Parts: sequence; structure tokens; C-alpha cells
Amino acid sequence: MIFRRGKVSNKEKHNDLGGTNDPKDHEDLHAQIKVDYQSIDKSPQGKQLHDWQREHIKGADQSKEGYPMNVILDPAMREMYQVVNKSKMTNVFDRFSEQQPQCKFCIEGLSCQLCANGPCRISERAPRGVCGVDAHTMVARNFNYRHVTIGTSANIFHAHQAARTLKAAATNPESGLKIRDQDKLKFFAGMLGINTDADINQIAIDFADTVIDDIHGPYHIESKLVNAFAPEKRKNLWRDLGIFPGGGYSEVAYAQTMSMTNFTSDPVAFLLNGVRMGIANEYQGLFALDILQEILIGSQKITEQEQNMGLLKENQVNIITNGHMPLLAHVAIEKASSEEWQQKAKEAGAEGIQVLGHVCEGQQLLNYEGSQNMSAYTGQEGEWLSEEYVLATGVVDLFMFDYNCTVPTLPLYAERFGTKLVSTHPVIKLQGTETIDFVPEKMNEQADKVLDMAIDAFKTRKQDQRETYIPPHTSKCTVGFSTESVLEALGGSLQPLIDQITNGNIRGIATVVGCTTAQYGQGGSNVFKITKGLIENNILVLSGGCTSSVMEYTNLTNPEAAEDAGDGLKAVCQQLGIPPVLSYGACVDIGKMTHTAVALADELGVDTNQLPLVIGAPEYLEQKAVADACTAVALGWLVHVAPVPSVTGSETVVETLTKTTEEMGLGKLMVEMDADRAVKTYVDHIETKRKELGI
Amino acid sequence: MIFRRGKVSNKEKHNDLGGTNDPKDHEDLHAQIKVDYQSIDKSPQGKQLHDWQREHIKGADQSKEGYPMNVILDPAMREMYQVVNKSKMTNVFDRFSEQQPQCKFCIEGLSCQLCANGPCRISERAPRGVCGVDAHTMVARNFNYRHVTIGTSANIFHAHQAARTLKAAATNPESGLKIRDQDKLKFFAGMLGINTDADINQIAIDFADTVIDDIHGPYHIESKLVNAFAPEKRKNLWRDLGIFPGGGYSEVAYAQTMSMTNFTSDPVAFLLNGVRMGIANEYQGLFALDILQEILIGSQKITEQEQNMGLLKENQVNIITNGHMPLLAHVAIEKASSEEWQQKAKEAGAEGIQVLGHVCEGQQLLNYEGSQNMSAYTGQEGEWLSEEYVLATGVVDLFMFDYNCTVPTLPLYAERFGTKLVSTHPVIKLQGTETIDFVPEKMNEQADKVLDMAIDAFKTRKQDQRETYIPPHTSKCTVGFSTESVLEALGGSLQPLIDQITNGNIRGIATVVGCTTAQYGQGGSNVFKITKGLIENNILVLSGGCTSSVMEYTNLTNPEAAEDAGDGLKAVCQQLGIPPVLSYGACVDIGKMTHTAVALADELGVDTNQLPLVIGAPEYLEQKAVADACTAVALGWLVHVAPVPSVTGSETVVETLTKTTEEMGLGKLMVEMDADRAVKTYVDHIETKRKELGI
Repeated sequence: MIFRRGKVSNKEKHNDLGGTNDPKDHEDLHAQIKVDYQSIDKSPQGKQLHDWQREHIKGADQSKEGYPMNVILDPAMREMYQVVNKSKMTNVFDRFSEQQPQCKFCIEGLSCQLCANGPCRISERAPRGVCGVDAHTMVARNFNYRHVTIGTSANIFHAHQAARTLKAAATNPESGLKIRDQDKLKFFAGMLGINTDADINQIAIDFADTVIDDIHGPYHIESKLVNAFAPEKRKNLWRDLGIFPGGGYSEVAYAQTMSMTNFTSDPVAFLLNGVRMGIANEYQGLFALDILQEILIGSQKITEQEQNMGLLKENQVNIITNGHMPLLAHVAIEKASSEEWQQKAKEAGAEGIQVLGHVCEGQQLLNYEGSQNMSAYTGQEGEWLSEEYVLATGVVDLFMFDYNCTVPTLPLYAERFGTKLVSTHPVIKLQGTETIDFVPEKMNEQADKVLDMAIDAFKTRKQDQRETYIPPHTSKCTVGFSTESVLEALGGSLQPLIDQITNGNIRGIATVVGCTTAQYGQGGSNVFKITKGLIENNILVLSGGCTSSVMEYTNLTNPEAAEDAGDGLKAVCQQLGIPPVLSYGACVDIGKMTHTAVALADELGVDTNQLPLVIGAPEYLEQKAVADACTAVALGWLVHVAPVPSVTGSETVVETLTKTTEEMGLGKLMVEMDADRAVKTYVDHIETKRKELGI
Repeated sequence: MIFRRGKVSNKEKHNDLGGTNDPKDHEDLHAQIKVDYQSIDKSPQGKQLHDWQREHIKGADQSKEGYPMNVILDPAMREMYQVVNKSKMTNVFDRFSEQQPQCKFCIEGLSCQLCANGPCRISERAPRGVCGVDAHTMVARNFNYRHVTIGTSANIFHAHQAARTLKAAATNPESGLKIRDQDKLKFFAGMLGINTDADINQIAIDFADTVIDDIHGPYHIESKLVNAFAPEKRKNLWRDLGIFPGGGYSEVAYAQTMSMTNFTSDPVAFLLNGVRMGIANEYQGLFALDILQEILIGSQKITEQEQNMGLLKENQVNIITNGHMPLLAHVAIEKASSEEWQQKAKEAGAEGIQVLGHVCEGQQLLNYEGSQNMSAYTGQEGEWLSEEYVLATGVVDLFMFDYNCTVPTLPLYAERFGTKLVSTHPVIKLQGTETIDFVPEKMNEQADKVLDMAIDAFKTRKQDQRETYIPPHTSKCTVGFSTESVLEALGGSLQPLIDQITNGNIRGIATVVGCTTAQYGQGGSNVFKITKGLIENNILVLSGGCTSSVMEYTNLTNPEAAEDAGDGLKAVCQQLGIPPVLSYGACVDIGKMTHTAVALADELGVDTNQLPLVIGAPEYLEQKAVADACTAVALGWLVHVAPVPSVTGSETVVETLTKTTEEMGLGKLMVEMDADRAVKTYVDHIETKRKELGI
């Protein structure tokens, strides 16, 4: 056998944490890495912290000089980054530095690795790939098959699993999850033409089956969910443009098929296909899973909660649940809240057992009525960037994860810091890590198993007398916003909100959603800068995703932050006792934001693209965010994205996404790395839309 | 807006054919490119050609020196390459040269472009991507999401369209295609538990629905098609390994989901998922579409046919149909064979109207009984590499294409040489090219439209008095092999073949399938060298794909080629009057080869992995070939691939695919660029299997 050999041996590729992924090497990790918890600079607390954050982002851009401490605004992460960095452990910010400079061809989308004639790169000297593909097709095809199909798949797969869980809750009510919001189930089942006079379990089964069948429908037959839930005017436009989707999985396979070598070579066909997937992504993905999870865990309520690593407790059994689909996690929280399990924890020498939520899962659990009521759920403690750092506290006994945003290095950290890792769905497997099968009918017993593991891990931590450090930071936040909870707060009608928009106290709405990245100038700071700029301009901000964590640790989801807003918005916030940033929760709660936007458009009697609304993803990271951007384009909205997506190698693609789509009645992308200029574009767009509406 | 800018402007990226993709520039193409048909060196013909080919491949490797004339064995392509190259037109071989050197990171699979923290490259200096991904996960994930999911999607999508067409033929018998092989329909419908006493149209509807429903089933419920058609022993193994697939589209979405950033990071999980998709790829893809197309176009019959560009005729209306799914094409051929359409062509000044098949579509149409009987279908004329060159003859009036292997530069060639391009399915769109919607109920009228366009294009060609050149080469070939046609030739039993294997006249069987590439040492010559070596070693070869074209233009599918074989195989071939290479047709006819292999295993009472059989893809190009390799691994076979797949950056991935999978009872990959060493490995493997079988 002959292989072209690289310069790097297998061994070398793994020695970044002082060992390899070979279990034998892991045994030495404790000895090899000396963790120094003492020598770190502590972050300011409370108001001092918030003043520092506000002062800091006014400075010059948070770029290469001083990176990454210049971009990290989370006080807990600032401390833990120092611990990890000084211990010379691999970590996300240092890896970003190591990866510089990045490949210019890949940055622009001008590299293709699809076939065995390649890899090919487009340049002046070689303007076409071996097959003959030009820059435009290469860029558009990469965009579609690498980003949109993956993101769309992931969101729809999520809805699929949630529907299976609802069905299990109905067919097997003792299995774990329950039907908590029956009214919601009936309401949306009714929209799908399901008989809502039947027994609630039967309605649940019919609803779940309808969702599952629709996801699995053929691409060439219009999706039932899209037909039931999307606005009429949009549906007509999508039909006219040939982008009304069928079943989401069939759509993904269609997109993958057209992406084959020597298949479609029309860039615009790829981009419109991406928008088509964006529609499926919304109605068979986000929107559907939001309904399903609220039915199962209780609809969102406005509430006061806490955030950050300070919620970890040295003498508690600390469980972190990570991901986006808190199904088994919710069962575990319910059990952990029982006297029985608290007692078991005490028998193991702990003061009790608590569950904290990481990334979007944590945001969701803050917001759902079901988990708000459960004593063992104590809060959200960080965005995805802080995952390695939180394990480095040494007090995380068990880290369970169901879905994306679980970084590949966790097994190394878990080994070093004694954390038990458990995947709760085979679709996410980490190296050498336990995976629980996804069987919603068995969640009760699975949750028992997880809690037992956590208590065992706690015992070991105490037996080993492990050194630990918990950064002493928490933030208060008012969260749990959604169409329904906002309606409830406003007395049952959106009219008060519309009045404030019409009278100009609120100029418009911006969603600031998605991820945070490790890029220069980002790491949370771009999210904060832009949001701060928007509220100063009296634009009400809705957040969802890791952006919600940023809003929380920068105090923007605290009603106190009304002081940060412009006069109009400040007055509204103070009157209602709400913050200027309304956390809708997770990135997957974007489905709830589109719901609010559609409700506003309906109330105003306009099409969705007429709203004074901008979608922002100022630190988008992954493929679901790209699919979500396609959703927003389908709904007619301006979408700001940063970092620059890998499409700049083609003027045709750039022009199509930033201009032509809007001319077709769709939305468009806007790419802007500078926060001040981005804010100005948001404001200008909102003012234009106001003018067009005559307000 | 700020975009990171590349060095290459839009304009520059397109000037390789003397113009851009802008229609305005196309108008100037005729003037800009002077085609010189006169100054080319002509290729030898007949026996002289075959002697030259045999002598040529004995020389030193066909590498960089003298490329590409040193790898091109097709006499027609040799002539037309000179025409195109001297005219300085962009073309596949010259583009391969322009792309050298290729990116080392991409070659090894060590480059990731999934998220906005990237692109990342794995090296000694940076052993992990920003997210923390290591070389193993990166390589395995790239392999799965870039190659296996796309190939699997494409094959299953193909079966899906064929099933829709069968349903249309049953519900609307005047729509175009007919149910030609009723026995085959009943046989396979019976295996699926369908009532075969019903009316034939009802059976067809039930069969089509079963296929469509199975493709669209959920991933977590076992596929009905796999259950009905796969060997029992394999199914049990697949269940044990957790790789028994559900519905193919759901499987693709599952694979895309797990490929997301910060999702699965276990390389072996990706690779086993790839094998799982390989099973769906076979039974919901290749195997299903092979049955469906034979039902619609007539099962394969052994026949003598002709191949190569010499079949084009200056004074005929020349239609080329390209792709893999000759559904509308077959309706067009049936019509073109009528007196009515021949007359129309004559009225336009032509001697008649003929259809030739390009790539796999041409191979299929050679083999199907339905098209064998139709006078307007006159043969296959080239592999995918020759697509641009065949248009440069100037006599192709219409080029219709349904599926993959239609290169992106064809619109440029079509504009220059007056060819009308038509896509017959919206899933494949070329820049500025007409697309016919896929409506199987309307194929009759769609075929009329296509034929009208072709006649119009012929008229324009004649009016413009365009200069043309047809390379005067054709090959005689005996083709149309399949399990059934072999059985028929052997008098109804595989025993005579088994006897020849047992007595050692035939040592074993090798499939030599898939594509041809433009790589150094390839371009058809590696396929030829390996096949020649195998038959010399008394290994019977089955071919499918662009490899069949190579076999044809090198005379290996002519019974005369028995002379090239070793004594044992030669005797068998001469006794039966067959060539030593049995063309099964297209790459998608691999489903027919697995059928033959399973039939042999059943006859011998052994599991499929015990057969003296090797799968070769000595010039694999694209993603369907990778999915097909995963199919072969699932069935327990040794699969030789060249060029080297982009997995060498990870020893874990290489070891898993080339060793561990075999230890699990699956097959394995073997990578070998040297033809002689490859042949030796095939021979050794076959001899080992013979020994294990005690023969």
C-alpha cells in the first residue's frame, strides 16, 4: 500500500494536551499538567464589572493585539482562560491563534475537495477546477452542501427527535416526559387539521406523527407544516419562485444530489435551493421543535434567573447538561429535584445535587415553565466558548450532552479533571465516551443511570481531594420572552408594543442571535458592542443562542440595563420593568422570534418583509446559523452576518445574496465586521421600513 | 460592506475560453477561437490501434512527462484533444495541469471549512482545529459529509425518480415509458410482499410506492428494501454492528447532522456510519434503480454493439443523451425511431435523426432490450472525460442530460459549436441552459420538444456551414451482461461458471468499475493496465461505468480479446464466444454485479465475504463511487481504489478502512497507485479466498 504521507505523525497530532487520545496516555495526564489556580488576575464584580465591560468595548477594536483577553468579557471565562492557558492546555482561544494565518482560498470559498481530480483552487492562473467549475459555482456549491444542508438537517433532526419524544410521552405516560402544555398542543394540532376533541394522548400522537411524516415527505410534494404555519403572502411568493419545500430530509438529499461533481453548475440554483432549505429549516425544524419542547417542558414564562459559573458549588454534586434538546436532561432535573435524589447525594457526602445548563440548553431550561419550577435546576453557566474552561474548575462531576456545541477536546478535559461525560443520543459520539441510546420510552431509567454516575463521580472527586476553583461570578437576568409571554405581559394584545413602535419610542426590532466565535474582535465583544449600539438607538433587541449568555454576563438582560438604552426605549423598559434585551432563549428559539414577527405583521396587516426588523448574527459560527440565515432571507428580512462567510470568492454569489434576493421579494444578507457601521445599517434599514409603512 | 478580497476579479476568473459567462461575451466566441481541425496527428485504427494501446501501457508509467497524450488511449479523444488544445480552449486535461501543484492539506483530508472559526489546517504546529477537532475526526468527518452522503443521496434520488416514472407509466400508460419487463416487476414485487395476482399496473404502483416510501422512511426503522433483498447473513452482521439502515434520506440527514461543528468527534463512528449509508446506497439506490429501469426499458440482453465518436454522422441530426437515468431519453429514442420523426429530419435536409449515448447512459442504452431494438439508437460514444472534446466535433446538434457527469464548461462549448443543451431534470442546472421539468406523466410531449429542438439546431448548423470533424473510430463490443443474461447464456444455471472457477480455469472475479480521472497515470490507462493484468491472470472481469468505455475502445469487450487472457480464461471465453471482460453497463449497474455475486454466494452456500472476488475502482472520481465502495465494504469485499482518497492525514482512519472493518466481518479498502502491484493484490486476495473455500 502506498499513501501520500503528511509531515505529521499520528503521535504528534495528539500531543497538544501532553498526551494522545490513547487511554494509556491519559493515565499520565494528571502528572503531566500542573494546574495553577492561584496566580490568576481576578475579574471585577457587579457594577464594577459592567462598567469595565462598557468602557472596554469603547476602545479600539478588540483585534490581534492583546488577544484573547481583549475579546473575553465573561468574568468567569477571563479567570478560567488564565488557568488553562498557564497550564499549557489546548483551548479554543489558543487554538485560534495557532491556526493563524488561515488559508486564503478556503476563506473565500475558492477551494473544492469533492472529487479525485482535485483538490482544486481557483486563482488567476487556474480560473477553473479540473472538472471545469468556475469560482461562482464552486463558492455557491460549497455554501450549500457544507453549510446549509448540515444546518437544515440538524434542526429538522432535532424536531424529529422531539416529535418521537412527544409520541412516547403519549403512548407511555410513565416513560419520563409529560404533556405539560395541553393548550399549546391543541392549538397547533388544530392548525394542522387534527381532531382536537380526541383524548389528549391521541392528539399528541397525531401531532407527532404529522410532524414526523412531514419531515419524511418527498421533496416534490408541498410540506404540510409549511402550509399550516407560514404566512400566506410568503407561501405564494415561494411557489412563484419554485422554492416551496417538501419534506426536509428529501430536500437535504436533493441538495446533496445537485452538489455532486459534474451536476448542477448554476450558482443561483444553489443559492435559491439554500433559501428553499431555509423554509424547511424553519417550519420542519425550529418552529416545530419549539412547539414540541414547550408542550413537553412547559411554555416559556418571563422570570428572573441566574447565570454563570459562580452557580457551581464545591460541595454539591454538579451536573452540567449541554446542547439544545433538554429532553432526557429535563427528566433528570425532575428526578434530581426530588427528596429521594437529594438524599442520595447527601449520603454520598454532598450538600445536594444540582443541574446547570450549558449553552442553549441552559437558556431553554431557564425559560421553560417546567424547569423554572424544579429546584434542582439552578441556572445557566456559559456559552460554548467556555466549555473547556468550565471543566477546568474541577467541580463538574458529570457533563451530559444531547446535541451540538460539545467540543472534541472534552474527553481530554474530562480525564484530567475527573468529569464523567455522557452523550444522550448516538448521533453525537465523542472519542472514548459513553453514549446512552435515544429511547424516549426509557428516559426514566436512563435519567436514574445518569444521576447515579454523577454521584459516583462526586465521590471520586472528594476521595481524590481534587483541587478546584470556582470563579465567583453570577448575573441576575430577566428572561423567558416569547410571543405568548410578551402577550401576557402586555395584557393579551401586541397593540401596546405596536403603539410604542408607531410613536417612535421603539424605532424597530433587531434579533441578535446565534453563536459567539473565537475570531479577533469577537469572543462575545462584537455581540455586546452591536447590541449596546442598537439599544442606544432605541431598537428593542431579542436574543437567542450564545448571544443570550453574552447579554446575561454583560447585564443587558437585567431591567437595570434600561439605563443603557436611548430615551424612548428606556422609558418603555422602565414602565414595563423589562430589560432592553429580551432573551427568547436558545438559537433554536429563533422559531419563537419568527413567530412574534409574523404575529406583528399580521396585526399590522403587512407582509413580513415590510416590518422594521433586522436579523443580526454578529458572531455566527456554525451551519445551523447559516440555515437560519436562509430562513430569514426566505421571510424577507435583512440579515447581518459576521464573520465574513466563505463566499467572497464569487461576485455573483455575493451580489445574489446581498441584493438580488431582495429584488425577488426575499430578504438579503449584509456582511459587516465593524460594529459601528453594522449598527448604522440596522438603523437605516429600520428607518427605511418605517418610512415605507408611513410611521 | 467589507469583504475580504481575493487577488482575482470576476472578469479574470472567466476569461479562460476567451470570454466570460456573460451572454454578451459569448457572442464573440466564434470570432475569438479559431478551431484548427487539419493539423492533428491521426490515431491508428483497428488492430494497429489495439497493438499500440497494448504496447503503450507496457512502458514506464504514464505520468507527468508527456501528459496528457500519454494517458489518453481513446483514439477519438486523442484526436479531439489536439483540436481543443491547439485552439487554446479550456479542457479537462489542461485544467488538471493548471491545477498543479495541489494543496497538501486538502489531499490528506486535513483541511476543514465547516465553521466561521476556520478554515483550519492540521499540522505539527497546529495539531487541532479551533474547535479542538483532531486529524482523525477531521479526516473521517470530511470523508462522510463530503463524499459518502453526496454519493448516497445521488443514487437514492435516482431510484426515487425511476420509481416515480414507473408509477406514471402505470397510472398513465400513454405518458411515455411503458412497463416492458412484467416478469421482473412481478418477481421483485413478490419479494416485497406485494400481491402479484393484481393487475400489472396495480403491481407497478404498489412496487413504486414501496420503493418511494422506503426511501422516505425514518432512519431508526429498518429499511424494507434492505430486509427484502440483502443476504440473511449480512443482515445479521449489520444488526450486530448497529449499521442496518432505515430510510435513505433520513440516513443522509442523520449523517449530515452528526457532521456538524462540535457534534460527533469519534472518527470510527463516522466511518461505520459511512458503511451504513453504503447499505442504503445499494438497496434503496443502485439495486432498486437497476430493477426499475429494466422494468421500464427492458432487461439487459447480451448483444453486439458499437462504440465511439465515429458513430456521429455529418448529415444526421445528432443527439447525444448523457447521464445515468435514460428515462426521457428512452422516450425520445422510441419516437426518433419512428418513420414520422425520420421524415421530419429529412424534411430539414438531414439523412435522418439518431441518438447516441454518452457515459453511463450510453452504456445502459446499449444493454437494455428496449433500446437495443430501436433503430434510432446507434451506440455509445465516450466516457465523461471526452465530453468537451465530442462537442468540439461540431456535429452534436443537441446534448440532453439527466443526471451527473455533465461538466460545467458545456455551455461554453455549446455556444461555440452550436449545440443545443437541455437538462431533463431541475436537479441538474447549467448556467444559462434550458431545463425541462421532471414530469414523468408528460414525457411524450417533452420528447417531442427535444426532438424539435435538435432538428432546429441541425438546420442552423447547415445554414451556418459550420466546419466539423468526426474522428473516424468505432469499436465493436459484446455487452449486456447481467445475472439473468449470464444465466440465460449458461443454460439457466450458474453451475457452469462455478465449475470453471472450481477447476481453476477462472481463478476468480474482479469488477473493474467506476470512473476515469484526469490524474497522471490515469485517463483510462490505469483501468486498461489493471484489467489487462487481471485477465492475463485468468480473472474474469466485470465492468460498469466509464470503465466500460475504456474496455470498449481498447477492444477488451470484443470476444477477440480472449487472446489477451491467460490460458484458462481464454479457453472459457472461446468456448462460450464471450470476451474476457463482461460489460454490465453503467456505474449504477454495480447493483447488478452485487446481484450476481450474491447469487454465486447463494449457489455456493457461503457468505458474500467468502467469494474469490475483488472490487476495483482504479480511477474512481466522484462521490457515488465512494458510496459504492462503502456498499462493497458492507458486503464484505476487498475494494481497490485509486487515486489515493483524501484520508491519509489520519492513521486511525486509514487503519479502520483498510484493516479493522475486515476484522469486523466487513470488507476493506486497499489503496494502490501502481497497476502491477494492484493486480498482484487482487490475485493474492482471490487465491486466499480460494484456499479458504478449499478450491
